[in-house]
Amino acid sequence: MKKLINDPLKVADELVEGLVDAYNGECKHVGTRSIVKTDIPDGKVALLIGGGSGHEPIYHGLVGRNLADGAACGDIFAAPPPNIVFEATEAVDKGKGVLYLYGNYAGDVLNFDLGAELSDDEDIEVRTVMIWDDVCSAPPTEKEKRRGIAGLVPIVKLVGAASQTAESLEDLEAFAKKAVLQTRSVGVSMAPGAIPATGKPTFELEEDKIGLGMGIHGEPGVAEIPMTTADELTPQMLELVFEDFEKDDEVEALKEGDDVLLFVNSLGATTMMELLIALRKAKDVLNSKGLNIYDVIVGPLVTCQEMAGISFSLTRMDDELKQAWDMPCQSVCYSKMEGRYGG
Amino acid sequence: MKKLINDPLKVADELVEGLVDAYNGECKHVGTRSIVKTDIPDGKVALLIGGGSGHEPIYHGLVGRNLADGAACGDIFAAPPPNIVFEATEAVDKGKGVLYLYGNYAGDVLNFDLGAELSDDEDIEVRTVMIWDDVCSAPPTEKEKRRGIAGLVPIVKLVGAASQTAESLEDLEAFAKKAVLQTRSVGVSMAPGAIPATGKPTFELEEDKIGLGMGIHGEPGVAEIPMTTADELTPQMLELVFEDFEKDDEVEALKEGDDVLLFVNSLGATTMMELLIALRKAKDVLNSKGLNIYDVIVGPLVTCQEMAGISFSLTRMDDELKQAWDMPCQSVCYSKMEGRYGG
Repeated sequence: MKKLINDPLKVADELVEGLVDAYNGECKHVGTRSIVKTDIPDGKVALLIGGGSGHEPIYHGLVGRNLADGAACGDIFAAPPPNIVFEATEAVDKGKGVLYLYGNYAGDVLNFDLGAELSDDEDIEVRTVMIWDDVCSAPPTEKEKRRGIAGLVPIVKLVGAASQTAESLEDLEAFAKKAVLQTRSVGVSMAPGAIPATGKPTFELEEDKIGLGMGIHGEPGVAEIPMTTADELTPQMLELVFEDFEKDDEVEALKEGDDVLLFVNSLGATTMMELLIALRKAKDVLNSKGLNIYDVIVGPLVTCQEMAGISFSLTRMDDELKQAWDMPCQSVCYSKMEGRYGG
Repeated sequence: MKKLINDPLKVADELVEGLVDAYNGECKHVGTRSIVKTDIPDGKVALLIGGGSGHEPIYHGLVGRNLADGAACGDIFAAPPPNIVFEATEAVDKGKGVLYLYGNYAGDVLNFDLGAELSDDEDIEVRTVMIWDDVCSAPPTEKEKRRGIAGLVPIVKLVGAASQTAESLEDLEAFAKKAVLQTRSVGVSMAPGAIPATGKPTFELEEDKIGLGMGIHGEPGVAEIPMTTADELTPQMLELVFEDFEKDDEVEALKEGDDVLLFVNSLGATTMMELLIALRKAKDVLNSKGLNIYDVIVGPLVTCQEMAGISFSLTRMDDELKQAWDMPCQSVCYSKMEGRYGG
């Protein structure tokens, strides 16, 4: 795969510079490799996200209007080290503390925790909420082992909106926990992406196979199944999400009349054409279960280079989540006007 | 390339159904294969876009709030036939006429013109403005031979905004002509996409080559150049846009102090990582020429399946264009809040 880059070892630094440029003054570069909003109001409860680079437009692309205040940016597929987490924390803190909200990967947990310790030394209060929406990566009784995948987009959107009016760090933490609890995803992979520094594929998969539940870096899934059609695969995938809501003692099962947010994501090379064809079937499946679609996100937002694959994320919406959703937002990753489609 | 589809011959129909579903009630399917907004105010000057499918999220994904009122959707890489153009025209017309705004391809011109004749028979007034932003496809003296490429995104965004308040079809036509005149693009290809019905590549290109000026379907460009770095390629590409503004008698050359809108587009598989790295260099190039970046669009919005490639589009902004730009918009292809970054 030909990549249009410069020095393969500097892609993370250069892409973050480009991301700052995309914000045209509304965000700035701070410290070693963080991006933060230029104007964060005094007394705002701050929201910090982050993770490895190489998955653009997430994670750092979710900094923006009514979204995250900053992101600590790691190297390609690598967690941001503690000093970067601390530099970002210091830059976004406006006296009301900082919520860390990121995907549950061992390296990220370790480094964000060390960043939180450095911040504590400077009397900046930090709370952490981890995103673990991938239902295929562990059973609901072991959520601490689950990976964070595409569900982070609706979650960061919702928490970013809530952070605009949150009165305390504790309130925002509680809101974020609810958004995480109500969001579940399932993904499949069809082909690997290429690691920028080496050009090597991120994993191997036979031409006629789909990796069900495979992670966004190629982490093992639950099964390899034969390549199939959009209309066959979509109900199979959504059923895993429905089952997860059923089996998890911490949430109610999805039931007739529930409002859900639907996010259909491409891992990179899977086209919008394919996403739309799958979305069409997903709508049928959700409607036949009596679920109302509150709003829809669709696009290649959580990617792994040229990886081919798709994921579905569902967020069950209550009044508080709906209010947060309806707020407009803008960023390189995801933007919307006030309200919702079909509202 | 594995594609997640159903019947390869029904992808255009199914993707348009999925697109309608993505709008969750705000748009509807009409006639054979068109998508139109559900509520178009009486007396609004209507804006109709369209073209071949397979380039998602354009063209049909630019129907939306403060954007196009409807799209006539062709089959994969094929113009919408006259009956589809007419059905869409009839559905969006609210008594003030309909502006057709689409990319300059022979098949589209023929079919939209026939659709306009059918509309004329029903006393619906139609005007046509074609988009021909690809500076590599013909010299400025032969704009009628130029292809429409990524520049259509800022152009439709601007004209969609203007259509909300346009007093007459003539006014909107004049505005659209200005937006087209001030928008120029240059693209390169690095690898082909796969035709959905056959799996065959859309063109051939050697592994170590870049197709400079190659069209989004693989149409011939101006040169095959050796694969290079983002920092080498970006100034070369932008120089072609600068030269075009200089050589064209119909517009002023870009000069110090001008405000430009910058759009960095991926043709599909080229990653957001690469777009951001190129954007970083593009900003340097524009600033060193004394140009101010008014706002930025970045993403895979004008694609050709899994094609690898990138384009830059520049739109010179005057006060009227800025006012239209600042209006919020929402669609599957492109959304923004009110105002602009850095404003």
